[in-house]
Amino acid sequence: MSRQFLAEGLELSGGDRGLVAAVAVVALAALAVGYVLLREVLAAGQGTSKMQDIAKAVQEGAAAYLNRQFRTLGIFVVIVFVLLFMLPAEDTGERIGRSLFFLVGAGFSAVIGYLGMWLSTRANVRVAAAAKESGGREKAMRIAFRTGGVVGMFTVGLGLFGAALVVLVYTGQAPKVLEGFGFGAALLAMFMRVGGGIFTKAADVGADLVGKVEQGIPEDDPRNAATIADNVGDNVGDCAGMAADLFESYAVTLVASLILGTAAFGAKGLLFPLIVPAIGVLTAVIGVYITSARTGENGLTAINRSFYISAVISAVLCTVAAFVFLPSSFGGLDGVSEEIARTPGNPALIAAVAVIIGIVLAGVILWLTGYFTGTEHKPVKEVGRTSLTGAATVILSGISVGFESAVYTALVIGGAVYGAFLLSGTATVALFAVALAGCGLLTTVGVIVAMDTFGPVSDNAQGIAEMSGDVDGEGAQILTELDAVGNTTKAITKGIAIATAVLAATALFGSYRDAINQTLDKLKVNVDDIASFSNLVFSPNVLVGVIIGAAVVFMFSGLAVNAVTRAAGAIVFEVRRQFRENPGIMDGTVKPEYGKVVDICTKDSLRELATPGLLAVLAPIAVGFGLGVGPLAGYLAGAIATGTLMAVFLANSGGAWDNAKKLVEDGNHGGKGSDAHAATVIGDTVGDPFKDTAGPAINPLIKVMNLVSVLIAPAIVGFSVGAGASAGVRYSIAIVAVVIIVAAVVVSKRRGTAIADTPAEATTSA
Amino acid sequence: MSRQFLAEGLELSGGDRGLVAAVAVVALAALAVGYVLLREVLAAGQGTSKMQDIAKAVQEGAAAYLNRQFRTLGIFVVIVFVLLFMLPAEDTGERIGRSLFFLVGAGFSAVIGYLGMWLSTRANVRVAAAAKESGGREKAMRIAFRTGGVVGMFTVGLGLFGAALVVLVYTGQAPKVLEGFGFGAALLAMFMRVGGGIFTKAADVGADLVGKVEQGIPEDDPRNAATIADNVGDNVGDCAGMAADLFESYAVTLVASLILGTAAFGAKGLLFPLIVPAIGVLTAVIGVYITSARTGENGLTAINRSFYISAVISAVLCTVAAFVFLPSSFGGLDGVSEEIARTPGNPALIAAVAVIIGIVLAGVILWLTGYFTGTEHKPVKEVGRTSLTGAATVILSGISVGFESAVYTALVIGGAVYGAFLLSGTATVALFAVALAGCGLLTTVGVIVAMDTFGPVSDNAQGIAEMSGDVDGEGAQILTELDAVGNTTKAITKGIAIATAVLAATALFGSYRDAINQTLDKLKVNVDDIASFSNLVFSPNVLVGVIIGAAVVFMFSGLAVNAVTRAAGAIVFEVRRQFRENPGIMDGTVKPEYGKVVDICTKDSLRELATPGLLAVLAPIAVGFGLGVGPLAGYLAGAIATGTLMAVFLANSGGAWDNAKKLVEDGNHGGKGSDAHAATVIGDTVGDPFKDTAGPAINPLIKVMNLVSVLIAPAIVGFSVGAGASAGVRYSIAIVAVVIIVAAVVVSKRRGTAIADTPAEATTSA
Repeated sequence: MSRQFLAEGLELSGGDRGLVAAVAVVALAALAVGYVLLREVLAAGQGTSKMQDIAKAVQEGAAAYLNRQFRTLGIFVVIVFVLLFMLPAEDTGERIGRSLFFLVGAGFSAVIGYLGMWLSTRANVRVAAAAKESGGREKAMRIAFRTGGVVGMFTVGLGLFGAALVVLVYTGQAPKVLEGFGFGAALLAMFMRVGGGIFTKAADVGADLVGKVEQGIPEDDPRNAATIADNVGDNVGDCAGMAADLFESYAVTLVASLILGTAAFGAKGLLFPLIVPAIGVLTAVIGVYITSARTGENGLTAINRSFYISAVISAVLCTVAAFVFLPSSFGGLDGVSEEIARTPGNPALIAAVAVIIGIVLAGVILWLTGYFTGTEHKPVKEVGRTSLTGAATVILSGISVGFESAVYTALVIGGAVYGAFLLSGTATVALFAVALAGCGLLTTVGVIVAMDTFGPVSDNAQGIAEMSGDVDGEGAQILTELDAVGNTTKAITKGIAIATAVLAATALFGSYRDAINQTLDKLKVNVDDIASFSNLVFSPNVLVGVIIGAAVVFMFSGLAVNAVTRAAGAIVFEVRRQFRENPGIMDGTVKPEYGKVVDICTKDSLRELATPGLLAVLAPIAVGFGLGVGPLAGYLAGAIATGTLMAVFLANSGGAWDNAKKLVEDGNHGGKGSDAHAATVIGDTVGDPFKDTAGPAINPLIKVMNLVSVLIAPAIVGFSVGAGASAGVRYSIAIVAVVIIVAAVVVSKRRGTAIADTPAEATTSA
Repeated sequence: MSRQFLAEGLELSGGDRGLVAAVAVVALAALAVGYVLLREVLAAGQGTSKMQDIAKAVQEGAAAYLNRQFRTLGIFVVIVFVLLFMLPAEDTGERIGRSLFFLVGAGFSAVIGYLGMWLSTRANVRVAAAAKESGGREKAMRIAFRTGGVVGMFTVGLGLFGAALVVLVYTGQAPKVLEGFGFGAALLAMFMRVGGGIFTKAADVGADLVGKVEQGIPEDDPRNAATIADNVGDNVGDCAGMAADLFESYAVTLVASLILGTAAFGAKGLLFPLIVPAIGVLTAVIGVYITSARTGENGLTAINRSFYISAVISAVLCTVAAFVFLPSSFGGLDGVSEEIARTPGNPALIAAVAVIIGIVLAGVILWLTGYFTGTEHKPVKEVGRTSLTGAATVILSGISVGFESAVYTALVIGGAVYGAFLLSGTATVALFAVALAGCGLLTTVGVIVAMDTFGPVSDNAQGIAEMSGDVDGEGAQILTELDAVGNTTKAITKGIAIATAVLAATALFGSYRDAINQTLDKLKVNVDDIASFSNLVFSPNVLVGVIIGAAVVFMFSGLAVNAVTRAAGAIVFEVRRQFRENPGIMDGTVKPEYGKVVDICTKDSLRELATPGLLAVLAPIAVGFGLGVGPLAGYLAGAIATGTLMAVFLANSGGAWDNAKKLVEDGNHGGKGSDAHAATVIGDTVGDPFKDTAGPAINPLIKVMNLVSVLIAPAIVGFSVGAGASAGVRYSIAIVAVVIIVAAVVVSKRRGTAIADTPAEATTSA
């Protein structure tokens, strides 16, 4: 069995250190560009005082939620910090570094999320105001996209700065410390994704069920007590959650590349994965600045053009970088094992092709997701047409679109992994190539974050315009158009996010193997001593691991969907109560208590995120300590495979339903108010928790589970090899993990399905 | 690496041969009991001439469909027969035997399916007639359940007879020949499942969309031209398809046990897996005969009681058999390798516990599925209550129920596999233990088939009663009650079917390993020469295999759902045409042309089954020859894991929606005609292709893919080891497979979504 270890004693030359420092400077420059963009956005006009009042309510609600969320998560972060400190480590420096940078990763994730929320709650009103001005279309689009640009710049800037810092300070021990950094980023992002996702969709679904369905008032009507909560939700879910998520993807992919890089490319392996995203920073700046819609051009076309231009520039520059920084033979690499030095092939060529694979993958997924969720293509048109035969056919056709697009996306991602893997016959280099393909994807993250943030900002802008009634005519038309563009960009970025997740997870899968092999080597145990270790893939216990991994993805999705319906039920209850107890609300003479609904959303989301969060962290611990390292490998494989398909299925079926509704609202098949419209509203409501809660949360889920596995692998192997007492400890840990999971699930089941509990009240009040 | 090979030169002693012959006699006795029951069912009264006319139309339609289906599949079977003949084999005898018994397996599957259809189309009218008589409840239930008993007896009889025959004739080569037998059974069952599933749900959904939704006429109204097709569908899908499917589960599990048995237990390994199902035959007879509802007792309670009683008897008898037939140490086994002979542990105890694990698994799944899909438990009640907040919440809560129940079912099945695996430290014995757990499940198949057939027979009886108008009052009440019981038994049997699929697939997974190791040994190749063979589970290419395996399950499900909506669209079109062109139909003065709708269903189902069928057979060929044996192992693992979850999710969410609708129809939440009812009708329509087309077809899909892999494994290894030209052949095969799959998908996409194409016509005619 071939084994490659991390170069623990690795030293960087002076020139190399200078290069890493230069990368850190580029990262800081990205932050500076972000600040310049931020000033530009804030300088724009804020519209009428009514619009500002609404914006203020949204700002306060969103800030209140995030502050409370951070306080709750703070406790969890401290617990994990302590546990992390207790896990086996090489020396105290590594132990401290790992725990410390766990905090840094979590902190950065939180900062990005908070910034995304803070800015988008300020940009929304400015976009709405800009739409009223002359040349409003260009101005509004510019503000919305540059808001995204700010978040994009901070995402890549903080991610790259953190990684460069770790490499500068820890050099040879950097990979271990980076595990902590990536874990912190992924863990916080997952909680923000789940919590924000539940908040936004509970408010959205709850608002629609009472407003649109029961009372027949339009979306974003100010008489609906849940409208402010709905707008708050867009910001804490789509902005804060997604920004933290993409930051986490960025950080974890970098971490995986740096872990695998030293084993494959020696010192250069610590450098090249930093150079590629540094190039991405430059092209992201270009991408953000060149985005402006030409007259009469669809906003999406302009955004796509920027994406493709910056992707091509990235590909060219990365290829040049590969041939400049890397030698043309493995023998020319410093600090690699003899086996690697003897590997045939050209490292520069392998690296360049791997990065290009990643960039091309981003482009293909952009196109594929656009095809399956865009209003101008066949799939969404067909879903729209099925609205004529009722809601059941809308649901079925949307599910078919979701299944189909998931298959193609998974095959494309699988193809990219396989392509990168084929670049070298040596497993270690092949794994690094997969990680480098991930780095290639990263070069597009700046623009992707900008695209994503564009969605909720324009959605909110339309909401504020509608609620205030101060934007009409052409201005309203512009905002509707931007909102539709935002729907598609949101779907696309989800596709890219899951692609980065799979590449990062595959690379981490390799790190997991390294962690096991290293530990076995240190313990001086022959690999074959671990029962059936060499025969893993065929063993029924590994297959059981694969089944459990797939099951956890289903469980997590089910919990997320359930949390939304339950929280939405509470909103329905509250909005109905306000309508009933205060008839003035319906007449428009009394303002509803928006704050109460925001409070309920806040409380419920935070309560609901505990169970899926615990499941993500504890399930790999239960499988690893309970069944062993082989089944845990199977578990990760099952979770990655099913997670990929489920995430894309949920995101794209939801996206297709959303845009099918838009199609009908644009006057097709009977238009607004028709039976066909009612059918697509049902589809859209089903799609809400799919695409904005369960689907996107699977992405950080996969990485959290992989990182937990990498971190606990040495401990599992240690316990497995040790006899007697250590077996007791091992199984005790597994049992405790299972007990906590079961308790969490039982507690959340106890809450019942609130939506189901409210009707008794409904029938008496109706 | 430990390797165990099949005992090629194995001989059975005279006593052992006698025992196998006795098993064959038991199998024939089962057929005789089936015949007795058959006579009893046919002897019952057939009701009024109007009822008989309707029954006749259903009989003719069903027979016409199956005949045409067999003609179509005949071509396919001949092609596979030839291909199978070309695959590597030990000698000509094995080659001929494998191909010949492929035909026998396919033929038995077809016979079981045909019988199921033939009898149920005759039993339905007799059940309806019996309901009118005094003591009708007991009589009707008795006829319905004994009809199932006939099919159950033929299923276990033919399965056991086929397997015993192969063992008697081929002894040492039996495992190889059995691969052909199992493959034939699984392949034909898969096609019957898919084709029948599309037929039944296209007719059902199409009938509902025009009848209930557009014209507002009740279900099974004779004015609806699709009603006869709907009843035909119940018989070709739920009866013929499910009977063939359960026969296939039975045969394949036996095959897997016999393949693994010789390696683990020597000659006894060929005997014990035959003795366990022989015991199952006896207990099934008891189960069928003791089933009768006590006065005032729910039909389901009576059926469940029979199941549990026969399960307990099976467990006791199998334990006795294990201790009588098997020695108490591995050294006492004849014809095993030295390594096995040295294995610690008691084979008799291991075998007994393994079989009991399987029987307990059946009981747990029976309970679990009943809990999640029964009207009297919390999950369905909650889905029913969400109907008060509209269709969207019904869909979301049903999906949550589906996800959740899939997780628990998968974990229970995974736990059973793991439990059986833990029984021995030796991989070969552990795998055999998993297969024996499958045999334990098999002992319940007789009763399970009876339970399953009960469903469509009572559904049809109600349909005939409704259409003829000749059964009313108490008789109608009895039939409604039996129909509800049938809904639950149908859901339960799907749970058991997927459990047998997972156990059989896990065992076949072991056979796949054996096939590879054997070939490597014959070719005198060191295992480690195959690149990264020993490191399979951690390799990115294996992970890609897992992703592809999971993707194929999604693809297959999507294709099946799409096929139903497409075929249903054609039905909608035709029924509308008849209503439009012949106004007399609506007045009740003219009989609609039922036959035309049956023809469309027949034509469309047969056309639609090609793509999913080709995908199932060719995908493992493409992965195996294209990516290698490691990724193919990953592929199988991914398909088994995702397939398990997806199958249960689809079956149980569909079951929950169906019964939630029943709950509302029973007068809850507003009852028939209320908004809540409309919401549950939407849920039920979405659930139709889930639970009766896509979900159950995954079960044979998993096994077909596993058997294809086992069969092609030697050829892949041969090509991989050979150089130059053989690599060309290998990749050419993969490319041809991919091209055919892509072409099939493109052709089926070209057909578009017929449901989406009809509305243009709809708007003009409405």
